Formats: sequence, C-alpha cells, structure tokens
Amino acid sequence: MQPTLTTGAEGLEIRWADGTVGAFPYIWLRDTDPAGFHPKTGERTFDLTTVPLDVRPREARVTPEALLVTWEGQVEPSRFDLDWIKTHRPGQRRHDPADIAPVAWRAELGGAGVPRHEADGIATSDTALARWLADTKRYGLSIVTGLADTTEAGLAVARRVGHLRETNFGLTFEVVSKPDPNNLAYTSDALPLHTDLTNQELPPGYQFLHCLANEARGGGSTFCDGVAVARDLRARDPEAFEVLSTVTVPFRFHDRHTDIRSRKTVIALDTRGEVSEICFNAHLADILDLDPGIMTPFYRAYRLLMEMTRDPAYGIALRLGAGEMVVFDNRRVLHGREAFDPATGFRHLHGCYVDRGEWDSRIRVLAREQG
Amino acid sequence: MQPTLTTGAEGLEIRWADGTVGAFPYIWLRDTDPAGFHPKTGERTFDLTTVPLDVRPREARVTPEALLVTWEGQVEPSRFDLDWIKTHRPGQRRHDPADIAPVAWRAELGGAGVPRHEADGIATSDTALARWLADTKRYGLSIVTGLADTTEAGLAVARRVGHLRETNFGLTFEVVSKPDPNNLAYTSDALPLHTDLTNQELPPGYQFLHCLANEARGGGSTFCDGVAVARDLRARDPEAFEVLSTVTVPFRFHDRHTDIRSRKTVIALDTRGEVSEICFNAHLADILDLDPGIMTPFYRAYRLLMEMTRDPAYGIALRLGAGEMVVFDNRRVLHGREAFDPATGFRHLHGCYVDRGEWDSRIRVLAREQG
Repeated sequence: MQPTLTTGAEGLEIRWADGTVGAFPYIWLRDTDPAGFHPKTGERTFDLTTVPLDVRPREARVTPEALLVTWEGQVEPSRFDLDWIKTHRPGQRRHDPADIAPVAWRAELGGAGVPRHEADGIATSDTALARWLADTKRYGLSIVTGLADTTEAGLAVARRVGHLRETNFGLTFEVVSKPDPNNLAYTSDALPLHTDLTNQELPPGYQFLHCLANEARGGGSTFCDGVAVARDLRARDPEAFEVLSTVTVPFRFHDRHTDIRSRKTVIALDTRGEVSEICFNAHLADILDLDPGIMTPFYRAYRLLMEMTRDPAYGIALRLGAGEMVVFDNRRVLHGREAFDPATGFRHLHGCYVDRGEWDSRIRVLAREQG
Repeated sequence: MQPTLTTGAEGLEIRWADGTVGAFPYIWLRDTDPAGFHPKTGERTFDLTTVPLDVRPREARVTPEALLVTWEGQVEPSRFDLDWIKTHRPGQRRHDPADIAPVAWRAELGGAGVPRHEADGIATSDTALARWLADTKRYGLSIVTGLADTTEAGLAVARRVGHLRETNFGLTFEVVSKPDPNNLAYTSDALPLHTDLTNQELPPGYQFLHCLANEARGGGSTFCDGVAVARDLRARDPEAFEVLSTVTVPFRFHDRHTDIRSRKTVIALDTRGEVSEICFNAHLADILDLDPGIMTPFYRAYRLLMEMTRDPAYGIALRLGAGEMVVFDNRRVLHGREAFDPATGFRHLHGCYVDRGEWDSRIRVLAREQG
C-alpha cells in the first residue's frame, strides 16, 4: 500500500502502511536531497546557504517507490527512495553495525569465560575477524591464541583492525622490568587495577598485550569490567555515581621529555546516559585541585569506586602464556598485575593500542561486505 | 611572618601573611603527602584504601618552612613545603605554561598579520621553538618560512613538537588534484571554510600544510578564527549558540576501507564555559537525525554560523608560496581554498597533524628548561 502524504507549513508527513510516521521539515529535505552528495566521495556538496531557511516546495507527491519534491525555482524534483527515507526519518538514529551493547561481567566470568580466538583465523578470514571484533567489543576483553614468538605477530593482529595509536611511550611498548623506569608498569611492582593514559585527552582505546615470556614467579594479569562496577555503583550509591560522572579531575604524566595533562570525569556517559568510559588511574591522578566543598564528597565516591574495583566479586585473573595475547578496551576494562620476582625468570609483554574509532570502522566495513 | 594554623573537625586551615587562606581537608592532606609519590616516576604510589575516609591527624603544626602533619598510628609526619601547599591548595588550579588564552582575530588581521617564524630557528633554538609554539597557540595560526623543497622539511618542523597523528588518510597526506578522489580535498574544487575530520572522536589538533608548489591559477588558502565567530554568535544570538553547543549531530566519513563516525556538538566549551573547539564540516555532516522538533532551530543556528564563517568580516586569504608552511589549530581555525585550474600549473601541499596534547606538552617541557 502506498504511504500517505500530508503537507504542512514547515514540513510534510508520511504515514506508512505499517503505522510508521515520519515528520520531514522542508529544510531537512532540501539539505538531504541525494543529488546534493558527491557521486564519488559520498560527501555533502549541497551548500545550505544557497537556499532560504524557510525553503518551500512547489509540489510534493509520493509514488509507490519514491517521494518527489519540486522546489520553488527548480524543474527537476528531489527524489527520495521511500525505504531510504523511512529509515532516515528525523528522530530515527542511523543503524550502526558497531553499536554492540556491552555485556557487563563480574568474577563469575572467570578466566575460562574470556572469549578466545585463534590468530590464524583472524589473519586469514574476514568472518573470523568480524566475530573476534564483535566478541571483544561485547566483553571489552578477549584472548588471541596461537601467536608466533615474534613481536611482529601481535602487531599483525592489531593491524588487521587499523593503524596503531602512537603515544609518548612510542608506537609499541615493551612491558619489562627496567632499571630506570619512567612509569610503574616498567617495574616489578604489583599494579592495582587501572586504565592507561588517563592523562591524555583521548586515552587509547583497545590495548594489545602479547605475552612473549612469563617465566617469573607471580606476574599474573588481573582485569575487571568498569561498566559492571559503574552500573553497580549507580544502583548502590547514586550520589557517588553523580559526583564521579560530573566532577572533572586533573590527570598528569610527566618525565624528562613530556608533560601531558588532561581534566576529565572518572566515569563518562554517552548521549543516552549510559556508561561509556572509565578513567581510573590513581598513579596519574594529579594533586586534586577541587574546591574544598566538593573535596570530601569526591574522595568518598572515588574511594568507594576504588574499593569496588578490588572487590573479588568483580575481578578475574589470567596467567598469560607465551603465544597468547590479551586484547581489551582500555577505556572500559581495568587491568592490573600481581607483583613478580624478576630473579625467578623473564616476563616480557609487547604492547600497542588501536583506537575505538578504527575498531568500529572495521566492524562497519566488514558488515558491509557480509551484507 | 609564619602563617597561622587552625585545625577543625574535617580539615585544617592555613592563613598566610598576605591574606591567602587555604582550606585543607585531612583526606586530601593524607592523599597528597609528598612521600606517597614514586621518587623516579613521580606517580602516586599511596593507596587511598589503606586509610579510612575520616583519617585524622594526631598533631599538626607549622614551622617557618613547612606544614607537619602526624597521622594516627604513624611516627614520621607528612611534610608539606609551605610555598608548595599554598600554590596547590584546594580550589586553586595548577599553573600551566600551556594555558595561553586565544587572541580572537577577524579580517583586520590580514595575511600580513599572521605570525611568521623561520624554520631554521625552530630547528636549532629551543627559545625560537617556544616562541613559535606560543604564537601559534595564541592565534591558532602561523606561517613557517624558509623550508627546503622536500616533504621531509615540513615533517621535521612537526616532529620538533611531537609525534605525528596518524589518521585513515595516513601519517602524512598529499593535497593534490587526484583522478579518483575519496575526499573533496583531492579535487580542484573550491573548499568552503571547514575543520578537518570532524567524524573522528578526537579530530586532529594542529595541521601542517607545507607548500611545495602553487603554480596553478587560483588555489589561494582561506582561514577564519572559529573562536571569534563563536564568541560573536554568542553575543548576537545566544539561542543559536546554545543549540550549537548542546545538540550533538552525527558526522561520518566512509570510503572503500573505512567508515568512521562520531556524534558531537558543533561548538564545544571547556570546563570554564569558554569556546574550546569548533567542529564544522558540512561535507562530513551525516544525514541529520535530530528529533523533528529541534531540526528547524538547529538548521537556523547552523546556517547562521555557516553564513558568519563566510562573512568577509572574518576571513583572511593567504597565497602560500613554495617553501612556506601554514600551521593551524584544526579544532579552532577553519580553513578552505579557492578553486584552482589544474591545467595552469601544479599545486601541491604536503600535510600532517600533531595533536593538541603533544603541542601543550612541548610548551610545558620548554618552559621548565627556561625556568
């Protein structure tokens, strides 16, 4: 059945047979005319300033396939495919294959519950790559297995997603105990659960830690899901959640060559109000400069979140072996490690980052190929 | 004169001879004890969960140089240098050498008013480098002169600041007219004023465009200061400013290999409510998906901003010559170009980005060296 069209003063309305109603302001229709996009680049070439804000059609009609709108002073009508305009109607968010809802997990997941994917499959099959990308995004964490014993093997997996995110620690980094560390990761100390580089305006997204050797006593890897912790905090103590998602605090890393600072909330929410990010790193939290009045409520909330991250109800432990690589969303999943004794053996992880933007882009491009 | 100390239930107060008063919650003092920071990395090693939220001192006193606080159950007092604690008192933002206020500029600046700096000085002198960094941040724009006729010459200037920001267009890019463009920049069309890569979660910060050849007719570069335009919009039409700084809109770039999307406001404000960023790119603005009710107010505000960016009151034009490089804050200063006729000669710009974080870091490190 052909949809019905009603024209009004500022826009027109289309009512489909299934009950869907779309309200289309005329200015939106003019700006969205498919003819106003570059045939090769897909970018908008139409210039909004060439029409008045109150642009009106001379005629508008629907055929079984299309909405046709003829503008004042124009001969050829703008043609909108009816299915297309239905899915793109104002107020309707565009479908996004990368919009994968996080599955919040707690200690019950266990090391055994972490999704595991073969490096070979990721390297050779787009289907396997797409599955791994989706799984890792859903849980914020996965293990890639069967890697060759070279630093290049881990990077090759990362580059299947996109280009690496360089930071002041380089394009890639070695997690080993170093004699003159500029960072606690480069000691043999235990590292409580944290997210990396919270001092950056955009902390790196997915982190890849390829285990090349783990012979030292200790040195297990620990993880907890920041989304699970933050959601539980929201239910348990809304006031603390409010403080952590609205008060910005200073983060800083500085060494001989750099001094990188950023202010941000510990919990970030997306436009829908859902937890989208955790910035939690006590080492990089700068001297707190909050107003004295908010200082105590902030410490209360922050300390509560810190205790929750250490609660055995949330954490899982993994002991990575050579040839395994853990991959996790650094802006969601907190990571840490047990102390290790460098005298008992070598521990060597090789790391890099790929940002969330590249991750999601790869998911979308693969979804396109797979229909 | 020695400052006076008053202890209270939840914190202590110090009153300096110059009238400065600092209110120091006990939990802040405990968390900020200089002994709780790693001697080599400077990172906080103190673990907040090891003390109760209502931690109290057994004794607190001031000497002419220091505040000494002895905690319950501890022998050695926490020692705070009095000058240090004065500058770091709660509510007082930490001094930041990179906190350089933007000088908003309009057409009166003219091409001749754009700060110009010699590549040689930047390469060889930290003082010249620091001056150029500050100038470029202040105006959002500068020209580096005297570059050698190689793509490497421009990159060397960028690398004096920090590592390059890679994007889906590569680590560096060539702006030339191409036969099969995936981007309007790679055509010979005019480009209206815009900011680059608004479809990225973090659009690139400083952009470097090194002119290697500009022999074609046309092809001048145009710029306008987004901070000036946004501030004037705020004064002229607060409602439009409100819409553009609160309503998030979708941006998208997609080609064969990528599909990168991000939602953001056209105008972003910092924590002080000042304009910190402009995201303005009509080509990359995706089909607008706003609710029908906000669509017309948004188009009104957006179209007004667009018209302001084209107003001759704001724009300046530059004709770059070979050996010159324009450097600008892509998140503040809009750039564009006149159309050119590729039949009349070659036009070749070589570009790269360095993010704001690296820029500010370099300013801070140089300020440290220069006292």
